[in-house]
Amino acid sequence: MTTEQLMIDTALASWRQAVAQVSETFNSLTDEQFQREVAPGKNRILYLLGHLTAVNDAMLIILGLGDRLHPELDALFVKNPDKVSKELPTAANLKKYWAEVNQNVLHKMEALSPREWLQRHTAMTDEDLTKNPTRNRLNILLSRARHVSYHLGQVVLARN
Amino acid sequence: MTTEQLMIDTALASWRQAVAQVSETFNSLTDEQFQREVAPGKNRILYLLGHLTAVNDAMLIILGLGDRLHPELDALFVKNPDKVSKELPTAANLKKYWAEVNQNVLHKMEALSPREWLQRHTAMTDEDLTKNPTRNRLNILLSRARHVSYHLGQVVLARN
Repeated sequence: MTTEQLMIDTALASWRQAVAQVSETFNSLTDEQFQREVAPGKNRILYLLGHLTAVNDAMLIILGLGDRLHPELDALFVKNPDKVSKELPTAANLKKYWAEVNQNVLHKMEALSPREWLQRHTAMTDEDLTKNPTRNRLNILLSRARHVSYHLGQVVLARN
Repeated sequence: MTTEQLMIDTALASWRQAVAQVSETFNSLTDEQFQREVAPGKNRILYLLGHLTAVNDAMLIILGLGDRLHPELDALFVKNPDKVSKELPTAANLKKYWAEVNQNVLHKMEALSPREWLQRHTAMTDEDLTKNPTRNRLNILLSRARHVSYHLGQVVLARN
């Protein structure tokens, strides 16, 4: 294996671990727990499940890897805060979307070569990338992995 | 720049961003806010500042990069949960340690070559690394970056 490929494999392993940790937590929760706020007046766990699903799904667009599965989630879980939308999908449905989205995103990402990981993402111009070459696809993978862990830190607060 | 070096630079940029985000939050807090729990009955922000300082400092050991600056923090912030130790350092002192520790760790990490990033860390045997070559130093960098973001997600809940 080349050095470059091992570095990408290491980054993908970190991504898989981030997703696996929060998936394990989501799968351990009851419907009642999904309705709990992570702290008084803050987001409910159900909202964070939908939010993470929408943001991970949207990685396909920013990485330039094709159409996303659930663009309809953005209005509920990204463009609006919790408790604005009157009706949210059930925890059971969101857990299904979460699994499908992550499987799809991982599958598409695993097909990228090391060189493709260093190309710019679609939210950047070629000129931006010349100025700062670390603003590439790999940067998106690492920042989205941290985004997953950021919200996991919140979800675990409401678990007990 | 080589492909390998650009990948490492991208990972280090993600690390710097994780540390900068939580530093900005810590620097915006009053002494009163450092005493707040992130959710009812959970860790205080002061404890999380000490915890992140201790864990980032300990990266030097696991990466094999020399002695750490503040090993005495482990007893207060890693081996024991919040509210066990009667007396903790002040927020002002911990913020100083936090800045020193991160500067020191970053300085040592920036000196590593791409090849050195793929060597095993000190918590692994050579045999472990042969079985799973992604359990290298880079893996530690990425998992500790996620650890910082995990606790940032908690700190922001108590900010307002």
